[in-house]
Amino acid sequence: MKNNNDKGLTDIASLGEFGLIDHLTRGIKHHHPETLMGVGDDAAVIDNGPLATIITKDLLVEGVHFDMVYTPLKHLGYKAVAVNLSDIYAMNARPRQILAGIAVSRRYSLEALEELYAGIRLACDKYNVDLVGGDTTTSKAGLFISITAVGQAEKEQVVYRSGARPNDLIFVSGDLGGAYCGQLVLQREKQAYRANPDTQPDISSYSYVIERQLKPEPRRDIIELLHEAGVRPTSMIDISDGLASEILHICKNSGTGATIYEEKIPLDRRMAQTAHEFNIDPTTCALSGGEDYELLFTISQSDYDKIKDISSVHPIGHITEAEQGHNLFTSSGQLVKLTAQGWDPIKAG
Amino acid sequence: MKNNNDKGLTDIASLGEFGLIDHLTRGIKHHHPETLMGVGDDAAVIDNGPLATIITKDLLVEGVHFDMVYTPLKHLGYKAVAVNLSDIYAMNARPRQILAGIAVSRRYSLEALEELYAGIRLACDKYNVDLVGGDTTTSKAGLFISITAVGQAEKEQVVYRSGARPNDLIFVSGDLGGAYCGQLVLQREKQAYRANPDTQPDISSYSYVIERQLKPEPRRDIIELLHEAGVRPTSMIDISDGLASEILHICKNSGTGATIYEEKIPLDRRMAQTAHEFNIDPTTCALSGGEDYELLFTISQSDYDKIKDISSVHPIGHITEAEQGHNLFTSSGQLVKLTAQGWDPIKAG
Repeated sequence: MKNNNDKGLTDIASLGEFGLIDHLTRGIKHHHPETLMGVGDDAAVIDNGPLATIITKDLLVEGVHFDMVYTPLKHLGYKAVAVNLSDIYAMNARPRQILAGIAVSRRYSLEALEELYAGIRLACDKYNVDLVGGDTTTSKAGLFISITAVGQAEKEQVVYRSGARPNDLIFVSGDLGGAYCGQLVLQREKQAYRANPDTQPDISSYSYVIERQLKPEPRRDIIELLHEAGVRPTSMIDISDGLASEILHICKNSGTGATIYEEKIPLDRRMAQTAHEFNIDPTTCALSGGEDYELLFTISQSDYDKIKDISSVHPIGHITEAEQGHNLFTSSGQLVKLTAQGWDPIKAG
Repeated sequence: MKNNNDKGLTDIASLGEFGLIDHLTRGIKHHHPETLMGVGDDAAVIDNGPLATIITKDLLVEGVHFDMVYTPLKHLGYKAVAVNLSDIYAMNARPRQILAGIAVSRRYSLEALEELYAGIRLACDKYNVDLVGGDTTTSKAGLFISITAVGQAEKEQVVYRSGARPNDLIFVSGDLGGAYCGQLVLQREKQAYRANPDTQPDISSYSYVIERQLKPEPRRDIIELLHEAGVRPTSMIDISDGLASEILHICKNSGTGATIYEEKIPLDRRMAQTAHEFNIDPTTCALSGGEDYELLFTISQSDYDKIKDISSVHPIGHITEAEQGHNLFTSSGQLVKLTAQGWDPIKAG
């Protein structure tokens, strides 16, 4: 079979994920004034009077986003919901309903689908979300999970990626890089198992990073804490593709630059230990690893005192004028340019 | 590899599509009073004060729901949107926004995705719908399209499957069976092409049924006509799986029986001609063929005069008490039991 280039066509990989979506949705016009936000944020926003309806969807594909060799189906169902709820929280909204679409090959048993749904329902119960729809169909090969999440917020409480202003402080929640390290461990164990199926892996010392990979928790608690503190972030995004990529999104949408400090990036000791074992710089895991589903947000300096005692959020830098670019001040005192990885959603090996 | 039965597990096919969804979503409780309708109708319904938000999603899978050999990508994008809008209209609501999720193998070119999106955008423009979100990712093989449609209706105008009452009249829009016949023709041409790639198929005489298959139009016009006539159906559903299956859905949800008359089922002459060519009874195409995306609805007898002059809707029978069952009065004067086909979404050959 001829490849695309031989036929004078363009490989989709050449645009990168975000370039591709930008390209395909370019010039889209909205017909309805109640469509407040379309493509280009964590979720779409629809005006419903005093309240706004927030909607997002994400597709998880076997062999691309997850590897059935080491992903328990219940965890997978849970994670599929969690990553969508994370997008709703990133708009400073509360998730209320989800719909689940599943395409599955005939080799899956009913019992396997029950496990998957058990995870979906567990996440719904934990995050107080109603499962209101879904379709289940067959696929020729593999498992595809498409979740749509619907949330609600008071209209003036919705936070976009575009609201950051120079001198705003940049915060992240939790710690970063763990999910990526968990994946490294799981892939190594998969290789070891293939080489010798009798091997009994001891992964107990990696339980923290593995759980970060297999069972991420969206940060509802942060949204509630900010709300209680009376702070509305000026911009927000969830960290699904690595800290660097998300900072660049905020800056692009807000028309700003940013400077962050390596020593301020929150890293868990267990993540750093695993990273060193794999000869990877822990900071690289945090900047480019992805899938942590923490929140990255900016606040006005005047709000600093209101949240400085919340232990689960950490200031890592500040927003600058666009001309100053995107910079990382390293622990060794150098100023380096922050770059995002290109498009590479092929994460499972 | 052992099959499921050998391992003491259950094949998913043994439950049928509707049995499977019922099984997986059994016992679901809603946490939020604004969740007016969850799983079990054409779409979910969320209370937003005087207005209701209607949400539905459908997954289209290559090799299951469409065959790339004879499906132009632009048509495919259009149809993926159309079938979701059809679900919104079937709730007596107006679609307002959609989100599109696409997983695609790397063999697809950018130009191919542009074609797909051109169809998606064409349907959005025609039906006055905003494309507000979506993600695009890779798949290991094949194309997966997941569309979420969002609609709006005044709360008391929403029509469920459950509102049919004995003596209500049963109506369908348009004509039935065409989409199935179109697929028969396309599959025959595919076989002929495989046997002899030099063959030049002449499918011009089948253009009606082929268009019914490749480019279905959701019946916005019917919703508008009913609205203008001041008629709110007592129940409604769109015909995606064949007339018989949809009547059984209405009856199950409404707790009723139904009697329909074969001679009243609207059939297009061109569909009947194609069906005869394939030695299939045209009525069978209408009852079991599926994918016509017409509307099936019931009205109170007192509303009959208001819509009897609308040429695009046709009375085909009436609702009965549940004890009377589901019956088809054939053209030859027999009363036969109406049954739906089982689960067989594998339609493309």
